[in-house]
Amino acid sequence: MEIERKLEAMGLVLPAAMQTPTEVKLPFVQVRVRGSRATIAGHGPLKANGTLFEPLGKVGAEVSLEQGYQAARATALAILASLKRELGDLDRVTAWLRGFGMVNAAPGFTQTPAVINGFSDLILDLYGPEAGSHSRSAIGVAELPFSIPVEIEAEVEIAS
Amino acid sequence: MEIERKLEAMGLVLPAAMQTPTEVKLPFVQVRVRGSRATIAGHGPLKANGTLFEPLGKVGAEVSLEQGYQAARATALAILASLKRELGDLDRVTAWLRGFGMVNAAPGFTQTPAVINGFSDLILDLYGPEAGSHSRSAIGVAELPFSIPVEIEAEVEIAS
Amino acid sequence: MEIERKLEAMGLVLPAAMQTPTEVKLPFVQVRVRGSRATIAGHGPLKANGTLFEPLGKVGAEVSLEQGYQAARATALAILASLKRELGDLDRVTAWLRGFGMVNAAPGFTQTPAVINGFSDLILDLYGPEAGSHSRSAIGVAELPFSIPVEIEAEVEIAS
Repeated sequence: MEIERKLEAMGLVLPAAMQTPTEVKLPFVQVRVRGSRATIAGHGPLKANGTLFEPLGKVGAEVSLEQGYQAARATALAILASLKRELGDLDRVTAWLRGFGMVNAAPGFTQTPAVINGFSDLILDLYGPEAGSHSRSAIGVAELPFSIPVEIEAEVEIAS
Repeated sequence: MEIERKLEAMGLVLPAAMQTPTEVKLPFVQVRVRGSRATIAGHGPLKANGTLFEPLGKVGAEVSLEQGYQAARATALAILASLKRELGDLDRVTAWLRGFGMVNAAPGFTQTPAVINGFSDLILDLYGPEAGSHSRSAIGVAELPFSIPVEIEAEVEIAS
Repeated sequence: MEIERKLEAMGLVLPAAMQTPTEVKLPFVQVRVRGSRATIAGHGPLKANGTLFEPLGKVGAEVSLEQGYQAARATALAILASLKRELGDLDRVTAWLRGFGMVNAAPGFTQTPAVINGFSDLILDLYGPEAGSHSRSAIGVAELPFSIPVEIEAEVEIAS
């Protein structure tokens, strides 16, 4: 439980499962494990109780760059919470492989890497440079579900 | 041929290969198989004869939410048609892993998950909750080729 | 070193590592190798010295379709340069699996496949139809980092 000890030492809490704000059905799984690989659904940022992190909206308009960074960090925590529910122990993640960061970008907002760093910095702090390294994209998309400011999809390697 | 029997029982037909509406060259493969994994190119919705499903345009403007859902369902059929051409038998898909849903979203249209459900619902109906479960994202993008309303990329596990 | 001989015969040069135009931190790796698979971070087009390829901006506005094609070709070279740094020899790539092409699209610009062909054509020229074939998407996104016209993420199989 080393990763969870680190989270606790950093004062960070894994959020509860997402409380969707509408009646929308979400007929998919948050984490799909086959063999030593897990693909992770696009996650948004959550508060500790599983409701959507605020403020909602577009980064560069309603949401500042710094708030966007915090949203990407909260998204990393939401992903870790899903992995914990699926795997039981976050130490079973032996390597992060890919992070795909999508920023709900206001027109002209191009500092998308600085936003998604909120995700990458936390993963590297927790897992270190060996297991935590990942390839990454950080793009600006037109719209995101529920007007969340950030959504991140990922892939990890896991111990069998 | 269990999946194809289910398709027939549901009155669904796999479309012919895409007839591109322009002279554009598409120098890639629809399904790339290596070992037990297949990555699937971004597909759009097709009519049975392989021409583009209509209406074209942005969901939330020219295309309604319900039409978007039907387009995502038609996109699932187009993906299944590509898999059938590549694998011979759709039963060789042993697990769906990842669906990446891209909605050609009108400004302010955020109900992208409800659109991409047209894909997920059909895959789950056909393959059931074990093989059919998949991680998923559903985002709004700025533009899609040929003004299609929906494009979906996916990944599956296959029997060798 | 067959691929590098082909590059030389075609008069093509792999660019130096990216010189980021701003003080932004990029805390991720360009290529993540685990076993026989490598995921490749989203790359943009570079000049030989590693600075950003020009013109910057949106394809369909500041950047023409033909310039977008050249940008996608330069992006393929940037990806090959990252693979060379990671793998030592580009012949270790035994199969291209997936290309995910993101075009910084002006409103209404839908010829995104014709842009990303600059990537696919070069990969197929270099690796041939067996190893070079890949599944692909080519979408229009709202914004890209540093206003680059094209970003491409990819995945390859490598010899151990």
